[in-house]
Amino acid sequence: MKNFSLFIPTKYYFGWNSLEILPLKAKEIGKRAFLVTGKKFLKEKGILDKIKSMLKENGIEFFHYDNITPNPKTYEVDEGAGILKKEKCDFIIGIGGGSVMDASKGIAIMAKNKGSIWDYMMMKKEVKDALPVILVPTIPASGSEYNPGGVITNPDEKRKWFFRDDKVYPKISIVDPEFTKFLPFSYLSKGGVDIITHMLEPVLTSETYGYIQYNFSAKLIKGVIESIIKIKENKDDREARENLCYSASLALSGIPTRGIGGFAIMHWLEHILSGIFDNISHPVGLCLLLFPFIKIIK
Amino acid sequence: MKNFSLFIPTKYYFGWNSLEILPLKAKEIGKRAFLVTGKKFLKEKGILDKIKSMLKENGIEFFHYDNITPNPKTYEVDEGAGILKKEKCDFIIGIGGGSVMDASKGIAIMAKNKGSIWDYMMMKKEVKDALPVILVPTIPASGSEYNPGGVITNPDEKRKWFFRDDKVYPKISIVDPEFTKFLPFSYLSKGGVDIITHMLEPVLTSETYGYIQYNFSAKLIKGVIESIIKIKENKDDREARENLCYSASLALSGIPTRGIGGFAIMHWLEHILSGIFDNISHPVGLCLLLFPFIKIIK
Repeated sequence: MKNFSLFIPTKYYFGWNSLEILPLKAKEIGKRAFLVTGKKFLKEKGILDKIKSMLKENGIEFFHYDNITPNPKTYEVDEGAGILKKEKCDFIIGIGGGSVMDASKGIAIMAKNKGSIWDYMMMKKEVKDALPVILVPTIPASGSEYNPGGVITNPDEKRKWFFRDDKVYPKISIVDPEFTKFLPFSYLSKGGVDIITHMLEPVLTSETYGYIQYNFSAKLIKGVIESIIKIKENKDDREARENLCYSASLALSGIPTRGIGGFAIMHWLEHILSGIFDNISHPVGLCLLLFPFIKIIK
Repeated sequence: MKNFSLFIPTKYYFGWNSLEILPLKAKEIGKRAFLVTGKKFLKEKGILDKIKSMLKENGIEFFHYDNITPNPKTYEVDEGAGILKKEKCDFIIGIGGGSVMDASKGIAIMAKNKGSIWDYMMMKKEVKDALPVILVPTIPASGSEYNPGGVITNPDEKRKWFFRDDKVYPKISIVDPEFTKFLPFSYLSKGGVDIITHMLEPVLTSETYGYIQYNFSAKLIKGVIESIIKIKENKDDREARENLCYSASLALSGIPTRGIGGFAIMHWLEHILSGIFDNISHPVGLCLLLFPFIKIIK
């Protein structure tokens, strides 16, 4: 093993109907939330109304910002932070897929710093502070709920890049497998490719052996594949849905990957791809790259 | 899976010669350290002098308290906290096995609370605050460096019991496999039984299936057994020593056990045993119980 460090300060809550604890946990963090979501999914499924009622009933004020698109853009993050400041919100609740969660972290940074999120991603400026963030993933994929990173696209430069700062480790994450029931199967399978790739690329490019990392990654990857097959065969397989959700969070937590070196080569390549072609979603980009990558690496 | 929560806020540093970062990390935490160790091991191996020089060279003041025995006693914790207050130390560095690390956490509690640690373990009083703690394990066994619990014996009541409080999660842990080179083989094998038991008992008594927990535990247990055999065959097997040390930390981190229910039945029984017979060390007590336990449970 190489020397490494691990730091995972998120309070992580997992389980069916755990969404119900959101107001309780929100109260621990702040008074007025900046609620970040995407445009469609939560609204169409009737979940958004439920969330808003839950927050209101528990006396949590909020401003709802739903201007986040897939492959979230720098201007969406900057605009969000501007509105947040005007609305005087003191924390962020991000509910959605990786795009919404990453954008929420970006907004958390820009709520406490000046300029554009791109300046901080390009290391032109230093992140001094960030607002606290609560994340609720709706798709098991990015694992953004259990790490301090995010990926944002600069459309002017047609460039997708990342930030990673311990200051935006989510304070609290709530992972409720119930959300997976609202997703079409293709979302789960594409999300699964994202989860698998998060562990496969560091292991396949690792510089040193790690018994724990190799074996944990292998078991998680096997479990994700089996779970996707099980859900295809039986929509009511609760265990498979749990397994997908928990695997997504653990994949980028550091435990399956830290200490073996290796790097996220497929993610780098994919970011170039979907940075240029905004209509390619992240998991589809990964699917395009997965087999050529395995062919080259072996 | 059952609903569960995970919270592991320790900054965890792992690797050969990582002990060298201790002064740097100590500076981040405080100015005057209460250095807690056992009586013999570090002194005999010449490591204590090295640590003291390292701290002095980096301008970190400290008071050295070495009055911790195996199966640490309530009066050792209470006495330590009294001296710490007189010496005006603002943080704790605990370097040793599980006894020293658990006692360090107990002292951290008593440095900020009144009465005896036993009052807090018996839930008669509530822990309000605690001093920050840096831990450096010298034996891969208890995993105390990566969880907020501790076990202390009350000799008046001949009773060993535990505390667990997020306020004494170590702020920083430094895990250096180098220490294992100074240990006789019997310490590593007995420590291995402790590590294995930490994962075996929750899995064997679990109330619900967890793919991730079962498989991760099984792999860690297999790895610990194989590593002990490898070290017996070849003292210079660095990978095996790394694996033992990292497994010890992960075993009680929550990841191999949280979400499946189950409980620490062997540890409970062992605490009764070594609570009465102080000459039985914790891992030896576990060895006595392991096979009868497996025979009953299967």
